[in-house]
Amino acid sequence: MESIDTLPAGSITSPAGYAAGAASAGLKPTGALDVAVLMSETACAAAGVFTQNRVRAAPVIYDERLLAERPGRVRGVVMNSKVANACTGEEGLAAAEAMAHAAEAALDLPPRSMLVLSTGVIGTPMPVDRVTRGVQTAAAKRDGTGGVDAAKAIMTTDTVPKHVAVRFETAGGVVTVGGIAKGAGMIHPDMATLLSVITTDAKVEVAQLRALLKPVTDRTFHAITIDGDTSTNDTVLLLANGVSEVAIARDAEGWKLFEQAVQHVARELALMIVRDGEGATRFVELVVAGASTEAMARSIGRAIARSPLVKTALAGGDPNWGRILAAAGASGIPVDGSRLTLSAQVRADTGGPAGEWLVLAKDGVTANPDETAARDIFGAKSVALHLHLGMGGAEATVWTCDLSEEYVRINADYRT
Amino acid sequence: MESIDTLPAGSITSPAGYAAGAASAGLKPTGALDVAVLMSETACAAAGVFTQNRVRAAPVIYDERLLAERPGRVRGVVMNSKVANACTGEEGLAAAEAMAHAAEAALDLPPRSMLVLSTGVIGTPMPVDRVTRGVQTAAAKRDGTGGVDAAKAIMTTDTVPKHVAVRFETAGGVVTVGGIAKGAGMIHPDMATLLSVITTDAKVEVAQLRALLKPVTDRTFHAITIDGDTSTNDTVLLLANGVSEVAIARDAEGWKLFEQAVQHVARELALMIVRDGEGATRFVELVVAGASTEAMARSIGRAIARSPLVKTALAGGDPNWGRILAAAGASGIPVDGSRLTLSAQVRADTGGPAGEWLVLAKDGVTANPDETAARDIFGAKSVALHLHLGMGGAEATVWTCDLSEEYVRINADYRT
Repeated sequence: MESIDTLPAGSITSPAGYAAGAASAGLKPTGALDVAVLMSETACAAAGVFTQNRVRAAPVIYDERLLAERPGRVRGVVMNSKVANACTGEEGLAAAEAMAHAAEAALDLPPRSMLVLSTGVIGTPMPVDRVTRGVQTAAAKRDGTGGVDAAKAIMTTDTVPKHVAVRFETAGGVVTVGGIAKGAGMIHPDMATLLSVITTDAKVEVAQLRALLKPVTDRTFHAITIDGDTSTNDTVLLLANGVSEVAIARDAEGWKLFEQAVQHVARELALMIVRDGEGATRFVELVVAGASTEAMARSIGRAIARSPLVKTALAGGDPNWGRILAAAGASGIPVDGSRLTLSAQVRADTGGPAGEWLVLAKDGVTANPDETAARDIFGAKSVALHLHLGMGGAEATVWTCDLSEEYVRINADYRT
Repeated sequence: MESIDTLPAGSITSPAGYAAGAASAGLKPTGALDVAVLMSETACAAAGVFTQNRVRAAPVIYDERLLAERPGRVRGVVMNSKVANACTGEEGLAAAEAMAHAAEAALDLPPRSMLVLSTGVIGTPMPVDRVTRGVQTAAAKRDGTGGVDAAKAIMTTDTVPKHVAVRFETAGGVVTVGGIAKGAGMIHPDMATLLSVITTDAKVEVAQLRALLKPVTDRTFHAITIDGDTSTNDTVLLLANGVSEVAIARDAEGWKLFEQAVQHVARELALMIVRDGEGATRFVELVVAGASTEAMARSIGRAIARSPLVKTALAGGDPNWGRILAAAGASGIPVDGSRLTLSAQVRADTGGPAGEWLVLAKDGVTANPDETAARDIFGAKSVALHLHLGMGGAEATVWTCDLSEEYVRINADYRT
């Protein structure tokens, strides 16, 4: 990725032709930002990936319908935190529509041009009047650097706003891709209370945006897990407004770089989410190799990454690697326990050297690893694990964090 | 179950013709009981249900082979805690065999007549010499009341030994069924580090014992979850020695009572395990009704019962019921979110009255429940939840506990 540059303080407003603003609608008792609008000066091609949860929040239903009906006429996104607008029935759908209308009116946009994102407590009615007033304030405050405030407005238990942007050059000109996300708790593949908006000023066909977003999401947002739970509201949106006048098309020059840029933005946001996992004290990168297919490798990686026993051992810095093999064995995937080989090392991003790989088990049998060396690795802030299944040549990477007492404290009374 | 009576301090030695003894082999640093033997004075018909984990501990492999080879010649079980003998390869299989041999020699039994159960840390070699000496001591101490000591010897993070026995009368005479179990952490359907031995003095065919044990396990041990994890060692064994000389056969008088008695013993042991869940402060009974099949109802119940977000909300006594619907939606089962109806009440076994059912959501939409009433229910020590799927007439019950900070403390450094 030598020709992709990261921008300082980048976000969804880094690409040309986007403005964003945020406000407090009084949903967060602290008075912090809780509503935001993103607007493009031209109509965007847009694609979305939505929660696989069978209980779907009103904004998810609203956005799916809008994207099916007008995928090339999207002008922006209105967002809020604190109230998920899920399990709210017809009233909830009406509330999502009212949010979109309020934003369209405030921004002087045509009807059915704004998408909606919500996150927060399920089953609480949306206070539409308050949100409408907040949206009006946010719209009035919008400008070309407002993307970071939008990232703040969608935070729930997140401790830091998550935003990034990159830029690359093609023969046709310079293209920028930027994104924001929120996550922290409830993060798991397919997906979790994860909201992300990615914007670009490239000119891209709707069908090609759609085809791009799914595999990118699989390798980034779907490859992270905090607690194994999935939510009613998860959404990743990708908007392309074409303001750069650089056309990017599959099988043409620039596509590969564009794909890498979008994946880089999504991956950086996904890793920010893991690092900010609720109560997380340790970051783990797990490569599952030797699988028959990438999907199989990812499923096993996810099963390990969501095991409470693996995650609590990680919280304690305890090299209880048997739990990792047991979680692989319990994944539901037909692995052969007698072929599993597991190694660990300190992950390089701690600042220090990456260190040696320590073999913990080979072909399903303990390698009687040096206990002190194992404790040193599992005690590091950032741990790399490598599990070889001994079956084939495919692999996948997943990222997760530990499960600490702090996670329980945060989630034991989330609503108060 | 009017004709099934519970015995005081009942266990695997309550049925006629069984003796058990336990000893400390020094595996537990405290010097507490850690090995045990159970012996029947006659050959038993025996059946087993084993972990579905693809990583299978040596005793699981050993027992499956023995039960396939000699299901009607079993004389007892040798057990230990602290070392799971999993991921130990050929050496581990030899160690399991050595444990069986040691017990057979000490009890003067024919070769290949003892089953083996182990639980504890994965990947640690079994200290065969120490265990052999412990088995000899346990064998010498055996008597007709030793079943409770055997229950103590298999405890890991359990805080209380788990044992129960019941008796019933048939036209042919009196039959007794008794059991012991260990659980606490890592408990989940299919299964978890859960060991259980159930004995009876009835005379039953091997094929009929086998056919009985699977559905009983599904409705009891497979219906509980502590943390959603499954282990390498889970085993439920059922032994029938015929010493009562009461023959019990399917389609004959007494079978129904026998089935109820075995299920009662298994259910009581399963509920003891949930109540003793690592760090558990709250017990939850969840009925999933309105399903197309019992298996579907149980799968959804399990998905809810293992959700960390549901379990942490329970720890906080927080009626965050949206997480329960979200967990049902994320179960992978095609439920219809717009048909889910959820109610809650205080569970009757708290001593007080059961109270009224409070409807939390009806047909997927919030019922805007009274917050004070909801907090009172979710703050109780024992909570009953009822989820109706609106699809069919089948139902299943699962039992679980909350996920507390204490759970994390226990599991963050289990090995030390």
